[in-house]
Formats: sequence, structure tokens, C-alpha cells
Amino acid sequence: MTDLMFRYATRSDLPAIVALLADDEKGKTREQLTDPLPECYYRAFDHMESVSSDTLPNKYLLAICDAEIVGCLQLTLIPGLSRQGRLRAQIEGVRVSSHHRGKKIGEALILRAIDISRDLGASLVQFTTDKSRKDAHRFYERLGFVASHEGMKRDI
Amino acid sequence: MTDLMFRYATRSDLPAIVALLADDEKGKTREQLTDPLPECYYRAFDHMESVSSDTLPNKYLLAICDAEIVGCLQLTLIPGLSRQGRLRAQIEGVRVSSHHRGKKIGEALILRAIDISRDLGASLVQFTTDKSRKDAHRFYERLGFVASHEGMKRDI
Repeated sequence: MTDLMFRYATRSDLPAIVALLADDEKGKTREQLTDPLPECYYRAFDHMESVSSDTLPNKYLLAICDAEIVGCLQLTLIPGLSRQGRLRAQIEGVRVSSHHRGKKIGEALILRAIDISRDLGASLVQFTTDKSRKDAHRFYERLGFVASHEGMKRDI
Repeated sequence: MTDLMFRYATRSDLPAIVALLADDEKGKTREQLTDPLPECYYRAFDHMESVSSDTLPNKYLLAICDAEIVGCLQLTLIPGLSRQGRLRAQIEGVRVSSHHRGKKIGEALILRAIDISRDLGASLVQFTTDKSRKDAHRFYERLGFVASHEGMKRDI
């Protein structure tokens, strides 16, 4: 296991995070990694912050190795009524730098997100993953996730 | 099309909402519909309200027919960084009263949630649906949703 640290992202981490989001088969066509970064990412970050708190975060969790951001995921805690008012944790945007794959950074990041979520009272973690990412599915199943649901999306 | 009205839920709607959540093959084993309702639902509602706003709602949207709550869904707007900072709308807990099925209430409710989400700046709507709900998948596909993702869950 690589020696990792974890912390939530700040605004100044955005270029590194967007670089990670774009460092991916799907992400490279979806993101716009320019210098300076397009303003849309800063607006989105501020938007996240506006509804995020320590007890109900909507934040990017970062994995840091030797002062470099090598992995990220978005962690959102969502209160709701179903299942007797269970608090859900939701994950989006999981990425590990292509230069640091095979070091169990993704696993450590997911496990850290689960620990944080449990500490905050969540009893369910969920996310969706593109059906074409077969390797990712095996990875998540090893971590105890079950592909019990269809993940449906529609552009509007 | 049945003559429907839509509004967000208030705290006093909770017994009717939990009755709807329980009026379902999966929900009937998951919910606890007692009189009075278990305190967990009220706590969860207050938790939802604490992070919800008019511009970034995390609310239950209700379909009302002749003053009766006949359908519901949880609508959560989630800001994030991926896909150039797209605002996502997420739906959970879609239910239509078993006494009112076949009247296109579910369709009207989903379309209203899409309209609200678009007006608030979201460009993607997503949700997960249990793989055993085959009829639901066809229904959502008719509404333009694509089952492009695996929906993964883990109890923690």
C-alpha cells in the first residue's frame, strides 16, 4: 500500500482535480482542461460549497501521495425518507491518476469515503458506473458493492 | 390524464408519504408504517430541510389528485465538478398509489421533476432502479432514460 493522505479539496486544487477527471477514457471527451481552467469549474465548486457542511458534505475527497493529488472522488451525503429515513452516501467522479494505478489508491479512497460516511451516520453507499467499465465493476464488487440496480440517465 | 396538482411536501404530509413508500413490493418490507409514525421519518425530513433550498432542493415532490396525495418522488439537485461542472438532478423513492396506477401519474410526476430541474439549471437527470423492476425500466425508457450505468450499493 502506497503511503497516502486524505483531505477534502479546496478551490486551489481545482486544476489538479480537473486534470484527474480528464485523465480517463470517458472523462477526456467530457472535460475541458485548459490553463486557466474554464470558469464553469470554479462556479460548480462554489455551488458545491454552498450546500456542503461538515455533517452533510458534498465535497471532493482527495488522495495525496508525496504532496501530489493522485486520486479523487465526490462524496455527497443525502438525507431522505425511504428505508426508514436512512442517510445515504453517494459517490461520483472516482479517478486515480494513470501514473499511479495498480497501487490500490482507488481502494483506499473508497474505503476512506465509506469510513467518513459511516461516522456521519450513513448506512448505505451508492454510485453508478458506466456499463462499459467492466474492470471497475469487478473492482467494486471486491469491495462489497452489489450491482443490484440499473443506473438510468437522461440529458435534459 | 388525471387532473393533477404538484407541490413540495411539508412535515404534515409525512404519514401519507410513508404510506406511499410502503405501498410497494420492495417498500412494504423496508418501511415502518405505524400511527404515530416512527420518529426516524420526522428526523430525516428535518435533515432534508436543513440542506435544501429553492435553488438546490432536496425535497419530496407530491402529485395531488382530489386533495389526495397519489404519488411522490424525492428530487435532489447535486452540484459537482465532472462533465464541466454540470448540475445533476437525482430522483429517489418514486411511488404511485396502488389505487391510482395506470393513470400516467408516474409519468406526469417524472416530467414535472424534469421541468423543475431544467428550470434550476440541471442538464442531467439520474436515478437507480432495482433490476427486478422490469416494468419500471420499460416505463423509464419510454420517458427517454437510458440504462447506461450499473447502480451499485453497499450497506455500511
